[in-house]
Amino acid sequence: MCNVVFKCFSVAVFSFLACCFVPGYAQEPPVSPATQDCISCHLTATPAMVLDWKKSRHANTTPAEALKKPEIERRVSVDKVPDKLASHVVGCAECHAINPDEHKDSFDHNDRKVHLTVTPRDCSACHPLEAEQYKKNIMSHAYGNLANNELYQSLMTSINGVQSFADMKTKVAPPDEKTTADSCLSCHGTALEVIGTQKRDSDFGEMEFPVLSGWPNQGVGRLNPDGSKGSCSSCHGRHLFSMKMARKPYACAQCHKGPDVPAYQTYSVSKHGNLFFGLYGEWSFEAVPWTVGKDFSAPTCAVCHVSLLVNNEGDVIAKRTHQMNDRLPWRIFGLIYAHPHPRSPDTTIMRNPEGLPLPTSLNGEPVKEYLIGPEEMEERRKTMQKVCLSCHTTDWVNGHWARFEHTIKTSDDMTLTATRIIEKAWKEQVADKSNLFDEALEKRWVEQWLFYANSTRFASAMMGADYGVFANGRWSLSKNIQDMLDSLKLLLETRKGRQ
Amino acid sequence: MCNVVFKCFSVAVFSFLACCFVPGYAQEPPVSPATQDCISCHLTATPAMVLDWKKSRHANTTPAEALKKPEIERRVSVDKVPDKLASHVVGCAECHAINPDEHKDSFDHNDRKVHLTVTPRDCSACHPLEAEQYKKNIMSHAYGNLANNELYQSLMTSINGVQSFADMKTKVAPPDEKTTADSCLSCHGTALEVIGTQKRDSDFGEMEFPVLSGWPNQGVGRLNPDGSKGSCSSCHGRHLFSMKMARKPYACAQCHKGPDVPAYQTYSVSKHGNLFFGLYGEWSFEAVPWTVGKDFSAPTCAVCHVSLLVNNEGDVIAKRTHQMNDRLPWRIFGLIYAHPHPRSPDTTIMRNPEGLPLPTSLNGEPVKEYLIGPEEMEERRKTMQKVCLSCHTTDWVNGHWARFEHTIKTSDDMTLTATRIIEKAWKEQVADKSNLFDEALEKRWVEQWLFYANSTRFASAMMGADYGVFANGRWSLSKNIQDMLDSLKLLLETRKGRQ
Amino acid sequence: MCNVVFKCFSVAVFSFLACCFVPGYAQEPPVSPATQDCISCHLTATPAMVLDWKKSRHANTTPAEALKKPEIERRVSVDKVPDKLASHVVGCAECHAINPDEHKDSFDHNDRKVHLTVTPRDCSACHPLEAEQYKKNIMSHAYGNLANNELYQSLMTSINGVQSFADMKTKVAPPDEKTTADSCLSCHGTALEVIGTQKRDSDFGEMEFPVLSGWPNQGVGRLNPDGSKGSCSSCHGRHLFSMKMARKPYACAQCHKGPDVPAYQTYSVSKHGNLFFGLYGEWSFEAVPWTVGKDFSAPTCAVCHVSLLVNNEGDVIAKRTHQMNDRLPWRIFGLIYAHPHPRSPDTTIMRNPEGLPLPTSLNGEPVKEYLIGPEEMEERRKTMQKVCLSCHTTDWVNGHWARFEHTIKTSDDMTLTATRIIEKAWKEQVADKSNLFDEALEKRWVEQWLFYANSTRFASAMMGADYGVFANGRWSLSKNIQDMLDSLKLLLETRKGRQ
Repeated sequence: MCNVVFKCFSVAVFSFLACCFVPGYAQEPPVSPATQDCISCHLTATPAMVLDWKKSRHANTTPAEALKKPEIERRVSVDKVPDKLASHVVGCAECHAINPDEHKDSFDHNDRKVHLTVTPRDCSACHPLEAEQYKKNIMSHAYGNLANNELYQSLMTSINGVQSFADMKTKVAPPDEKTTADSCLSCHGTALEVIGTQKRDSDFGEMEFPVLSGWPNQGVGRLNPDGSKGSCSSCHGRHLFSMKMARKPYACAQCHKGPDVPAYQTYSVSKHGNLFFGLYGEWSFEAVPWTVGKDFSAPTCAVCHVSLLVNNEGDVIAKRTHQMNDRLPWRIFGLIYAHPHPRSPDTTIMRNPEGLPLPTSLNGEPVKEYLIGPEEMEERRKTMQKVCLSCHTTDWVNGHWARFEHTIKTSDDMTLTATRIIEKAWKEQVADKSNLFDEALEKRWVEQWLFYANSTRFASAMMGADYGVFANGRWSLSKNIQDMLDSLKLLLETRKGRQ
Repeated sequence: MCNVVFKCFSVAVFSFLACCFVPGYAQEPPVSPATQDCISCHLTATPAMVLDWKKSRHANTTPAEALKKPEIERRVSVDKVPDKLASHVVGCAECHAINPDEHKDSFDHNDRKVHLTVTPRDCSACHPLEAEQYKKNIMSHAYGNLANNELYQSLMTSINGVQSFADMKTKVAPPDEKTTADSCLSCHGTALEVIGTQKRDSDFGEMEFPVLSGWPNQGVGRLNPDGSKGSCSSCHGRHLFSMKMARKPYACAQCHKGPDVPAYQTYSVSKHGNLFFGLYGEWSFEAVPWTVGKDFSAPTCAVCHVSLLVNNEGDVIAKRTHQMNDRLPWRIFGLIYAHPHPRSPDTTIMRNPEGLPLPTSLNGEPVKEYLIGPEEMEERRKTMQKVCLSCHTTDWVNGHWARFEHTIKTSDDMTLTATRIIEKAWKEQVADKSNLFDEALEKRWVEQWLFYANSTRFASAMMGADYGVFANGRWSLSKNIQDMLDSLKLLLETRKGRQ
Repeated sequence: MCNVVFKCFSVAVFSFLACCFVPGYAQEPPVSPATQDCISCHLTATPAMVLDWKKSRHANTTPAEALKKPEIERRVSVDKVPDKLASHVVGCAECHAINPDEHKDSFDHNDRKVHLTVTPRDCSACHPLEAEQYKKNIMSHAYGNLANNELYQSLMTSINGVQSFADMKTKVAPPDEKTTADSCLSCHGTALEVIGTQKRDSDFGEMEFPVLSGWPNQGVGRLNPDGSKGSCSSCHGRHLFSMKMARKPYACAQCHKGPDVPAYQTYSVSKHGNLFFGLYGEWSFEAVPWTVGKDFSAPTCAVCHVSLLVNNEGDVIAKRTHQMNDRLPWRIFGLIYAHPHPRSPDTTIMRNPEGLPLPTSLNGEPVKEYLIGPEEMEERRKTMQKVCLSCHTTDWVNGHWARFEHTIKTSDDMTLTATRIIEKAWKEQVADKSNLFDEALEKRWVEQWLFYANSTRFASAMMGADYGVFANGRWSLSKNIQDMLDSLKLLLETRKGRQ
């Protein structure tokens, strides 16, 4: 322990000296004694973590100062912060030592109680509105909506389970925890649970740390050791936690770039993406509020789905939201078909007429009681269209939306045709319905709705051209039906041959 | 109406005040009274549209000033502009109220005749050379070349038509207008026709607007309400219309990023792309003329295909062109095979020996009468090579071109082999030739030339490595032949089984 | 010849004048007379080549000046450079006229001996450490490791050979030199051999040049005319040769972006990529040494695999390496399975138990005698983890690596299952083992390990989410097994039908 103290002392001396030279490291902004303690060791232990934080707004503003701004310019959403937080910058201890009683991962660390994870509940000390909104965001339930839905579990098994082959048959093992965390849950979030403690030697002597299952992870629906859901650092990367990162499309691309949800790709070939990539160097990603046409000339993901937007007169065009689907009437991510957005962020409660935990029947009928109704859809449509109308005329916007909502219908029709084919295979028993997703023909059916119909709809929503045609769009929708038809015929022929 | 006047008045007052604060909004550049009228309402109605324009060169220069520059530095290609345009900046009214008699979409709007669309003909008031060149650009005919070619129509049907399934057969419905506009025509351009009028309430009272079919759209071959073809905003995004956008590869990526025409992807993994992405922050995208090695150190799409280039002595290396294929001997986009560029931008006139509207026979023979000859090819090759030679030695350039033109041949050979297989299927009647593109095996054949042979050639042209090998390149060309062969065998076997 | 002299003279006069105006063109840095001669003509002949070089560090620093810096800040790795190189900037002649006796492509050019290619041996005059390290880099053997491995040759034939079709059979022609150079060898490197000379007219009269097979090329394992291997310009693009380019991920994307080795894609959807793309405009890519957290806040490829890194106290976190795999215990690029890195960069010496030139048996057993052992693996793991630990805590890093190394195992298991299926096909003689890679079913097997298992592992290594799931990840691994199983069944059924 003596050793630790000595090392920390020498580091503290060094870091005092360093203050004079590292640009941006601050004599000025008041750092709490607790955070100073953290830094004194961690500047050596994890130097980039500390230096990154030093560049952040958190490290250079106190909540009290933040509150002096007019409300519309604030990033905090409290009227008042607790006294103990108000007059120091937001440093290590302010986040990692807040709410220790709630945090099952809280542990003694150099005579302080700190916790490994920082959660939306912790952030809500200064950002309560965002935390509340995020609770209503379907993304905050991304873990449970996947892991607690028995149908999606069978999909996960068919993807993540290791298969073996013998006697002309394959067998699938249940997916293990590490694989699932590395796969689906890397975006959806893992369940962080304290499963023990571990002693480790460090430069500062032996120390004991909690061991968390599912760690590391920063998925959007992470189950946290304090019972909260999600991870603000999904979009606001540690330890800068910047708005400018989250306002660029790369933030969303982390999870929204696969063939299942090709939002980023679609955007990147749209006119909006063209404008962003070509001009963003001249835009402001720090301004709050964000003035359309002045701070930026084309939308990023955040513009349409999240940010507080004003016009040049300061009138609010769209309120900031961390619910994110409150500007969206439709959930174009097909499960199995596109559908109005669910009312509750918890989608495990849904049952379709076939008894499956899906928002639509296998024939595409939305299960109305779980989904928002026409009025709510219209309200959300209008909210989004108000953003469109900042740059586009009414006829432009109406034409675009008519086309988009028509594409929702036709892409669902093409899914229905694929469903008819797989249903025929199930009925004729050339495919086995016990798991809907594990045979070759079934997997083609999955690609119809999960890849091609989704891609077509995302392309239509954001005018991403080829993602609605040759790049997993209508070309694939139509080809896949023919491929499925040929496969079904062969399965039936060879069965006949065997009889 | 009174209401409109009042609102406009109050907006005008505001916007006068705004002038003093919004940076770049101009006391200086003379805005025409007509444009001032537009702005007085539209700064509220579509604020970002106006603010975007204010940042543009159009908003900050009069044509008369533009003409004071030495000819080689000009962006305008007239010697003189009409007096009424010369001494005001190019604002709303200058573009949306020009040529009203030609514009079927011209309508009365607050006591002025304005039209919704601005077309190449409108732009030709100041940019006539570009407009003339663009007429010769095959892209300007992209609508008709697709929509008026019966073979491509059957391809479009097979892609865009909604399929249904019953009795082990699929049936395709004719593609509807909205789908086609959302799909192929989003790049090719729609036919904009006035199909009626609509009254709408607005913040400024009830107003009547023309309704256009196919709107919105900014495809390269759009049929405009004034009879012209194309949309300058395809590449020069509204309302900035900047050269710097069009000079970056993102502009082209909007349409040239799919598996059918993977120009952007190929570029992005080339050395040229590497240099662009790594260094472009230090380049000038505004300089006219564009000096190789000084303003930029590696080509973007525009460098090789469009821009006016000079060397450091001011000698012209390549003239600006909006024909875009006049530096290209080959059309490497296979239909069905690569071929010398068509003589006429209207390709619907072509007939191959089989009577099909294609530039080559199904066996790959170019149909010479419709295509440029060897002398013209050599001239275009030399024009492009002069660009290459700015940075590369003669042996480098010759070696590259020899390899590229060899790849044209081998990729066509691999297409021919796939064609032999599909012809066998047609002959044996295990595939139905009535539509060449709608069955599973036929679709594999389409992918051979439309995806894999194209990708291989684009990769060769721009040294995009893996797009010529594993990313839809030779790996796919060779695998697809084996897949087609296996499918053909199965079709023949199961037919035998049924007999 | 008189003509040449005259032209060169007039160019020299011009270029003297040009010096006064072209910014950055230098009176100051001393250019050798030989290089001045080169420039006097090449500023006209290949102007961008010269202007690009002028912006380089090479053109603005002499080796003698470079040596005045503290060792840790140097880009050169000599203690002393030969006198003849020390006091002029590194220009055309310094590189293209060094070591003439070693260069088979050396030729008389305006009374000087120059060579077309510049090689790692040439660069080693000032950068010997990098050249030595690169010799141990498996990349430097990329040509021979491919071209001299009979198994990979059969893979290349199956990809690059032109196939023909007759009598329901396909036949493959041996791949030709141009195709191979345009395909695999564009990354792996070609064999540059002087195969003759050619006279060409130039602006400066008739000249004779050597003709090189395999030119142009800048692949990482290029066989050079001086017997050395590789091309520094693979990553340090000509003629800027900058560190800042090589430090950005675009440099690596040239070869590491295909489905076989999706490193760039994976990175681009990772948190690291998100941070890079969103923030790199504020980072320094020129600083030597490179301080984590200060110069950059998230890794690029170079950070983890190449660069000299220090913490804010100046302590070395990782030494610069051009071996590049010395921070890597595993080679996750499966051949056919992931395996510990080979001991020798020459992998043609390896033989597995089946006698095949592979690092593992067909069942996945690593062939230990050719691969690094557990101690070396642990040392490399620790070297890399020290980089991770600059930003992440120990528990984070341990958790990540445990998951990653588990994924290596499960992805190999999924490859083994696919191998069992193809082995069954070989055994039952429904596939022909004479070439392992040329039939449809075999090609699916290849995609299992070359595309899907690789993608899954790269995604796990760099937390690239969807590349481990739907974008060629576990979804494809599991679907492909079912597709292979169905195909095997059909092959067996139809054989039975024929019997």
